[in-house]
Amino acid sequence: MNSPVEFNPDEWVIDSNDRTSLSIKIKKRLFYEKSPYQTVEVFETCDRGKMLTIDRMVMCTEADETSYHEMLVHVPMQTKSSIKDVLVIGAGDGGTIRELVRYENIATITMVEIDEAVVRASKEFLPNISCALEHPKLKLLIDDGIKFVQEAADNSYDLIIIDSSDPVGPSEGLFTQSFYQDVYRCLRATGLIALQSESPSFNPKAFVELNHCLKGVFGKDKVHCYLVFIPMYPSGIWSLTYASKSGISPLSFNRDRVLKFTQKHNLSYYNGDVHQSAFALPTYIKKMIGEG
Amino acid sequence: MNSPVEFNPDEWVIDSNDRTSLSIKIKKRLFYEKSPYQTVEVFETCDRGKMLTIDRMVMCTEADETSYHEMLVHVPMQTKSSIKDVLVIGAGDGGTIRELVRYENIATITMVEIDEAVVRASKEFLPNISCALEHPKLKLLIDDGIKFVQEAADNSYDLIIIDSSDPVGPSEGLFTQSFYQDVYRCLRATGLIALQSESPSFNPKAFVELNHCLKGVFGKDKVHCYLVFIPMYPSGIWSLTYASKSGISPLSFNRDRVLKFTQKHNLSYYNGDVHQSAFALPTYIKKMIGEG
Repeated sequence: MNSPVEFNPDEWVIDSNDRTSLSIKIKKRLFYEKSPYQTVEVFETCDRGKMLTIDRMVMCTEADETSYHEMLVHVPMQTKSSIKDVLVIGAGDGGTIRELVRYENIATITMVEIDEAVVRASKEFLPNISCALEHPKLKLLIDDGIKFVQEAADNSYDLIIIDSSDPVGPSEGLFTQSFYQDVYRCLRATGLIALQSESPSFNPKAFVELNHCLKGVFGKDKVHCYLVFIPMYPSGIWSLTYASKSGISPLSFNRDRVLKFTQKHNLSYYNGDVHQSAFALPTYIKKMIGEG
Repeated sequence: MNSPVEFNPDEWVIDSNDRTSLSIKIKKRLFYEKSPYQTVEVFETCDRGKMLTIDRMVMCTEADETSYHEMLVHVPMQTKSSIKDVLVIGAGDGGTIRELVRYENIATITMVEIDEAVVRASKEFLPNISCALEHPKLKLLIDDGIKFVQEAADNSYDLIIIDSSDPVGPSEGLFTQSFYQDVYRCLRATGLIALQSESPSFNPKAFVELNHCLKGVFGKDKVHCYLVFIPMYPSGIWSLTYASKSGISPLSFNRDRVLKFTQKHNLSYYNGDVHQSAFALPTYIKKMIGEG
């Protein structure tokens, strides 16, 4: 065949496993820091706006981040209208917080991010994503989320969002049964969780194991996987998971309320049809998680 | 930064535009031919089975092809149960034909593929996909699909499927108004079409222009875009489009019939929930095609 195709790292960022690789063309690097936990970088891409990576895994691009952040937050928030106290683990770029502060019914948001470099880089270079990180309802702690939930009081949150990177490095402990047992304990009786739960195509093992782990903690019929198109994550198919302590269906949202909310806030990805449809899984994915 | 990352073409196949690039690890190349139209190749990948590419654009992998072929065929076929005569343009790998021959109500399938090299490569190396290319209901013509529909009789098909590669090379003419005017003319009064309509993320210009073209020919309310997860296409988000001459809604399918059919045929991706949900578009995609 021909000579090798070279991806010059001044021109391309590569998010890869050993079988599939997504390369995104960049104009320049804006931020680089080896924190105690990981390598944090921000790039100016050619056509996806600015992009945050951790250990060269794409966390978000300005062009696509709404799909992830809107679906992670509005699915649980529209399902239960009485959420007051929210705990967020991870979420250093701030996109999840930006979506949460749209809700007047929320009284407190506690965010626990382990790496202040992610917060600092996002505040400086991703203002459209990090814009709510100074919000008065937010208590932002730079701390270990695993330790935080171990020490948190029982029945203290209505919603816990786990907005983590992949299960390597500091996020590894966020994919364990003991972590989710603590999460479960901290939730109020009608509490909900929503989390990033990996790609059934790019990370099938982590996707399946996490689903199994969550069903072990919450009960099989209280855990619901849903899918989001994220073009700048490798494979483009990504899962989030909703679970509830009391069995509230994620499809029990109020269509009129959703319509008013999405129009008022001019959302980019989320709408009522998408909320419902995201839970319709292709048959092969249902089979992967024992639902087919 | 560091030294360039090299993708050795003996080890990786790269499907790329100038901003985003998907690389798929391969074990070896099984077929290579420069046909009069394009370069046709088949590879053994590391974890997606065998893969067909045309001019180094991924057409299908054995691991993912069911998502595309099942959604292209079963959405129109389950919407209208009385389809007898089907015309297929392109589809040289045979996956679309394999799905069509599952229906006993179909009397004739005429397939017009311009490049016999695609058919030959698929028959030799992709037997799981091409397995129905010798089916007695199928009339397979190696010919120009554009010329074929120009010369075809009025009102002669119940369903026309356009299963094409991207709008470069021989497929370019399949993305024009004059082609779809001929398609419209050849359709019976209650006829349907379904087609590959590009990615809103990877090929946004072609996606928008094709949607506009189809609405010009069929009427704005008779054209319905739907989405499929295809991990081995760059960006992973891909659109198909359903349109009807008489305004039959693609959501008017019979759930019981779908359930029986999918169970009988042990389908991999398509099911009733997925059929309905695929038409729920994220808000930004609705806005791209003037529906937001």
